[in-house]
Amino acid sequence: MQRLLITGAAGFLGNMMRQRLAHLAPILRLSDVADLGAAAANEELVQCNLDDAAAVDDLVAGCDAIVHLGGRSIEDKWSVIRQSNIEGVVNLYEAARKHGMPRIIFASSNHAIGYHKQTERLDASATTRPDGLYGVSKVFGESMASMYYDKFGQQTAIVRIGSCLDAPVTHRMLATWFSPDDFVSLIERAFTVPHLGCPIIYGASDNSTSWWDNSQTAYLGWQPKDNSDKFRDHLMKTVPQPAPDAPDVIYQGGVFTADGIHPEDED
Amino acid sequence: MQRLLITGAAGFLGNMMRQRLAHLAPILRLSDVADLGAAAANEELVQCNLDDAAAVDDLVAGCDAIVHLGGRSIEDKWSVIRQSNIEGVVNLYEAARKHGMPRIIFASSNHAIGYHKQTERLDASATTRPDGLYGVSKVFGESMASMYYDKFGQQTAIVRIGSCLDAPVTHRMLATWFSPDDFVSLIERAFTVPHLGCPIIYGASDNSTSWWDNSQTAYLGWQPKDNSDKFRDHLMKTVPQPAPDAPDVIYQGGVFTADGIHPEDED
Amino acid sequence: MQRLLITGAAGFLGNMMRQRLAHLAPILRLSDVADLGAAAANEELVQCNLDDAAAVDDLVAGCDAIVHLGGRSIEDKWSVIRQSNIEGVVNLYEAARKHGMPRIIFASSNHAIGYHKQTERLDASATTRPDGLYGVSKVFGESMASMYYDKFGQQTAIVRIGSCLDAPVTHRMLATWFSPDDFVSLIERAFTVPHLGCPIIYGASDNSTSWWDNSQTAYLGWQPKDNSDKFRDHLMKTVPQPAPDAPDVIYQGGVFTADGIHPEDED
Amino acid sequence: MQRLLITGAAGFLGNMMRQRLAHLAPILRLSDVADLGAAAANEELVQCNLDDAAAVDDLVAGCDAIVHLGGRSIEDKWSVIRQSNIEGVVNLYEAARKHGMPRIIFASSNHAIGYHKQTERLDASATTRPDGLYGVSKVFGESMASMYYDKFGQQTAIVRIGSCLDAPVTHRMLATWFSPDDFVSLIERAFTVPHLGCPIIYGASDNSTSWWDNSQTAYLGWQPKDNSDKFRDHLMKTVPQPAPDAPDVIYQGGVFTADGIHPEDED
Amino acid sequence: MQRLLITGAAGFLGNMMRQRLAHLAPILRLSDVADLGAAAANEELVQCNLDDAAAVDDLVAGCDAIVHLGGRSIEDKWSVIRQSNIEGVVNLYEAARKHGMPRIIFASSNHAIGYHKQTERLDASATTRPDGLYGVSKVFGESMASMYYDKFGQQTAIVRIGSCLDAPVTHRMLATWFSPDDFVSLIERAFTVPHLGCPIIYGASDNSTSWWDNSQTAYLGWQPKDNSDKFRDHLMKTVPQPAPDAPDVIYQGGVFTADGIHPEDED
Amino acid sequence: MQRLLITGAAGFLGNMMRQRLAHLAPILRLSDVADLGAAAANEELVQCNLDDAAAVDDLVAGCDAIVHLGGRSIEDKWSVIRQSNIEGVVNLYEAARKHGMPRIIFASSNHAIGYHKQTERLDASATTRPDGLYGVSKVFGESMASMYYDKFGQQTAIVRIGSCLDAPVTHRMLATWFSPDDFVSLIERAFTVPHLGCPIIYGASDNSTSWWDNSQTAYLGWQPKDNSDKFRDHLMKTVPQPAPDAPDVIYQGGVFTADGIHPEDED
Repeated sequence: MQRLLITGAAGFLGNMMRQRLAHLAPILRLSDVADLGAAAANEELVQCNLDDAAAVDDLVAGCDAIVHLGGRSIEDKWSVIRQSNIEGVVNLYEAARKHGMPRIIFASSNHAIGYHKQTERLDASATTRPDGLYGVSKVFGESMASMYYDKFGQQTAIVRIGSCLDAPVTHRMLATWFSPDDFVSLIERAFTVPHLGCPIIYGASDNSTSWWDNSQTAYLGWQPKDNSDKFRDHLMKTVPQPAPDAPDVIYQGGVFTADGIHPEDED
Repeated sequence: MQRLLITGAAGFLGNMMRQRLAHLAPILRLSDVADLGAAAANEELVQCNLDDAAAVDDLVAGCDAIVHLGGRSIEDKWSVIRQSNIEGVVNLYEAARKHGMPRIIFASSNHAIGYHKQTERLDASATTRPDGLYGVSKVFGESMASMYYDKFGQQTAIVRIGSCLDAPVTHRMLATWFSPDDFVSLIERAFTVPHLGCPIIYGASDNSTSWWDNSQTAYLGWQPKDNSDKFRDHLMKTVPQPAPDAPDVIYQGGVFTADGIHPEDED
Repeated sequence: MQRLLITGAAGFLGNMMRQRLAHLAPILRLSDVADLGAAAANEELVQCNLDDAAAVDDLVAGCDAIVHLGGRSIEDKWSVIRQSNIEGVVNLYEAARKHGMPRIIFASSNHAIGYHKQTERLDASATTRPDGLYGVSKVFGESMASMYYDKFGQQTAIVRIGSCLDAPVTHRMLATWFSPDDFVSLIERAFTVPHLGCPIIYGASDNSTSWWDNSQTAYLGWQPKDNSDKFRDHLMKTVPQPAPDAPDVIYQGGVFTADGIHPEDED
Repeated sequence: MQRLLITGAAGFLGNMMRQRLAHLAPILRLSDVADLGAAAANEELVQCNLDDAAAVDDLVAGCDAIVHLGGRSIEDKWSVIRQSNIEGVVNLYEAARKHGMPRIIFASSNHAIGYHKQTERLDASATTRPDGLYGVSKVFGESMASMYYDKFGQQTAIVRIGSCLDAPVTHRMLATWFSPDDFVSLIERAFTVPHLGCPIIYGASDNSTSWWDNSQTAYLGWQPKDNSDKFRDHLMKTVPQPAPDAPDVIYQGGVFTADGIHPEDED
Repeated sequence: MQRLLITGAAGFLGNMMRQRLAHLAPILRLSDVADLGAAAANEELVQCNLDDAAAVDDLVAGCDAIVHLGGRSIEDKWSVIRQSNIEGVVNLYEAARKHGMPRIIFASSNHAIGYHKQTERLDASATTRPDGLYGVSKVFGESMASMYYDKFGQQTAIVRIGSCLDAPVTHRMLATWFSPDDFVSLIERAFTVPHLGCPIIYGASDNSTSWWDNSQTAYLGWQPKDNSDKFRDHLMKTVPQPAPDAPDVIYQGGVFTADGIHPEDED
Repeated sequence: MQRLLITGAAGFLGNMMRQRLAHLAPILRLSDVADLGAAAANEELVQCNLDDAAAVDDLVAGCDAIVHLGGRSIEDKWSVIRQSNIEGVVNLYEAARKHGMPRIIFASSNHAIGYHKQTERLDASATTRPDGLYGVSKVFGESMASMYYDKFGQQTAIVRIGSCLDAPVTHRMLATWFSPDDFVSLIERAFTVPHLGCPIIYGASDNSTSWWDNSQTAYLGWQPKDNSDKFRDHLMKTVPQPAPDAPDVIYQGGVFTADGIHPEDED
């Protein structure tokens, strides 16, 4: 692998991966619409709007692998979701198709299945139940990945990310927590297995509290190592439990399910 | 029911339904971007582009029920698909939400699951496998319907239409044929059951050759009456069989699976 | 078959079966706690309380087959349910065990699975979700039948009766209607198949609107013939539709789910 | 189709098909180890032992389609089963591979799944549970068909024949009866669908009493028309019911399950 | 949590939990029909018969959580089972409903599914197959829990306890062993998760030999820590293996399946 | 256990087990068609061709347990496969039936399911998809084991061996690797559980990369301990990855799927 592209590299996840994926390729190409700071010796920085097809085409050219974290990652008004998560994905897949079909890690989200209840256990064949426009846009992206695989052989790891941060900060995150180390090991594995295909993988650590079953993708040989249980006692003491009928306790998508449609004139 | 809206009423399916659904409401409101001809006494004609949110809002106001046939119904370049099938659906659901949430019949398509093989049998919980941008746009639409149902209670009958025409004209259509009478009876049923929910229904007649299983939606009480077998002998004699490895014989989506991505500069 | 016992023969279903099952055996033994009127030439009438073990033992002695319709068939206070549906079933199975284990038709009820939603499709392996004390007592009875089959070989047809009356009188009954003719043909079949076992059968006609799937018991060869659709138009015109969120529209058990626990001092 | 081969044409099923399949091709080639009588104008008769590879190669050469009924069709000693059902199948598939891979109808048997109980419902994905050496040989044949399809694209309709005769003569056959007309229509369909694949089809009529579910092969569009119910009353009156724990009542394979291993010195 | 009620506290399991659950609440209320000995400082002792509704009402008043171990825990004559396990459960749930619906741990049993074979693997959706009147009474209790949850929101952890003792003493217990530590951690978890619902949990340790699958309740985040393997060698040496067709080897319920119905006049 | 028979003891696996299973019985009886070298004090050596029924009968007489590793273990021409893997198995099962039905470990193979893709996850109920004549012969052997269990109670552990060698030497073997230690522990367990039955077990270690799910046979209490991950880095550095569409990457059976039918005149 000569050049690894990370989109959305100025965001929270993107910045984390900028630090942690440098060993995968001699050159990291980093893109974002926001400022990316100073380039390290091994970095190429590209300011780029994902809804600009020509710019995305340039961005992808010459890359051997893509970690696609770019786009809006929480609920927003439709015009924002559309430009970043709909147009952005269309542009990315067309660019990849034209430039040798490098493998893609697609950052999907638990919000693609957010209206399933926490008492349900889902695997890769579960029906989608998005919990907002953001979730719908992720179903769209998964659907693009599926189609480009069936039609062209473009391989993608679809990762339905839970909550990727250093430690869980809500009770719901005891189930959704995805340690940065586990995300990194998943990305490494997706780039090194001989055949990736187009699997749907739930991005969560090996948490005792669990709603998701990755056994269908055991052919990848990826096994998360962390467990949110080590934070449980601290969390129980410091964070009040939500009411037993709060959305954060009922639905897998948590508080996103309580959100409405954002009006176009909101900031 | 006072006023029934049919979108895409100048199209093939739309025109068919304009003739056949008049008994459902005193007033038919018909919309299309194309010319709709002269209005009958019970008809309101509205020329309207689905990607115009304000126009769609006006269109939906005052309607008790919607048969949404509007949008592009075959593969096309992305900009066309996006404006009609992505923007159009977003506008329709927002308008419906604001105007009393009339029930919607959403014309989805077998192309949302087109890459499944014809030797597979699918029911409502099958994973989507779209066979092109058109198919992806239908997955998007289904996903919007699902989200508006979970979040707001908006009820939609998602109909994955096979081949709705007077008679099958290819061998594949022995499985996908959906007689206009059967489509009409499904629409009637969807508007009259006490609780519709947001079911996924395969739009096909009671054909002997079948890839689809609607038993999960038997709570609707809809049963197709026609069977493509009455056309089988004629078809065998007049239409050459495709090769045993032709896309039309391998995949449920048929020749759509052999299509590429349409370039933006195509007409 | 020499003597067929029908319990609860003075009740609605019991009286219906008294008229319709006479051809199955030379002697009908009929029991009820209520008055059974005058005996026909082929009838033996026994006034008997099901919670009286000795009386039930006498009742069952000499019978080759049992249609057990006795007991409380709607929600009631616990003491009533217990005496008729708990004690009654214990007494019946003990008596049967002691007297040659005649086959039993056990009138269970849709209220054993009443909290499943009408959008779900259940077969014989569905989990029970009773909708009241009456429903719980039916789960108890099914459980007794299962245990006596596994332990002693006592064969029972467990029939989860929907709504057995001449015609549906609510919209929900379009799904639950069980024509008397179809019930009779099921009883005939259960008594004549070489091996009955202990199957769970949903007692419903071949209605277009359907929540239940009897395919697992197709080894019995029973097929209902009637369809509630013939009453649909009349029902639509004469009976107002319930609200889309009424219990009668949401749950398979209908209005029973809206009932509370009956206090012991109610009449 | 120019030439249709029927093996085992002097046997019971073979003779039946000799009469009924003549319309499928101008030339019927008929083979058997036994005497085939006089040839009709459209018939080619070949006396041939299936364990003779060269003879089978000659037999298959020039044929466009094969109905393979040859071999031993009841339990026998191993040396007989091996020569006809193991060697015979190996020879047939090799010959077919070398001669253009004509479609094959492979007469498998319910005895490949004979130890499943009659209270179970099986579809094409059920595990095999053969009930004797004969049943094991049928599993072998199915396995050869599967391998030749996966490896070479050789298409086979695997038909697990129930009881193909004019009318059921035991109570068990109410479930297993396969009318000759229905078998003929299945063969016709298997030869005319554009893509056959390698489906497992239970060869039974549309009997009310049923243990088998062909819904997974509905892509073939074959529907049996006959129902053993028309013989039920006659059977009930003329054939004594077996005991409720007789093998013919407990297992799908019936009395075959009660048979032992036949010694090599049996005649 | 202010006050935790443990019923059946003088029994084997009850006494064990009296020692081990004191940390969960400032006050332990302990009840039994038998003598409970002297009260510790943090204990309230209540002698109470579970079939006495008024007494149970008093017992439950003021409690925030209930571990219901009371009732008969082995096979017995019906009158005993009824008073303790049927009446007792009805009284408990009514009392709980009237007093704020404290969470309940309901001690169900593997004997609710005892007639499943040991070669089967069961999860929470398995059908019940009770192995005696005791098992039937546990199905009844589970059914009450389910109904009170669906109707009133009363939350219960239904624990199908295997064999809760310090070490396995039969070969069957290699699969059913439930270490006291693991039971305690399950109770702790059931009382602290934000939403409990009404799950069915198999009460067994993390034994290598296993018939039960708790993956559907992984949302609780409970993971047993012990494994019966540490006792395997000792058991193999000291306890003779049962015959390969002994009930203790064939059925999950073990020797209970070999028991009959206990007569009412037994002591 | 007095005498353990290992067939195929001169082969690779056989020799390995000769060293490792001596602790299971005072006498090891070892057989092969090839030379077995010198006998140790506890060994009985028998040169024997498996297609010789009388010799196999003698071989099995007096044995309490059998590890059947004999026969051809890679693809070969039919006559070789037939004599060793078809005739050999028939002879072995007949001999076992006549001599007290000692438990058998039957070395089946992943090539019985070799045409399943590596992206599929199989359990014991997966359909067989053999990848050559060798695979077909293993399906035959499994089928014999199943029939002898259902008919006579002969118990067999069917082990679908992956790749049993000291370390994986191809990328595919990261999934199929079966450490000798794990195979030994499985054999020990199969001989000591009170009831073995006739389970299908995938013979693989606890590898992170996995296509197989043994949860249905958790009643055996066998758990593999090794994981191929310890060899992954070394393998990545020393063995070139196959192309993403190589058979070794696509199919579970690997390169066997690319093999043809071996002609009879091959050496």
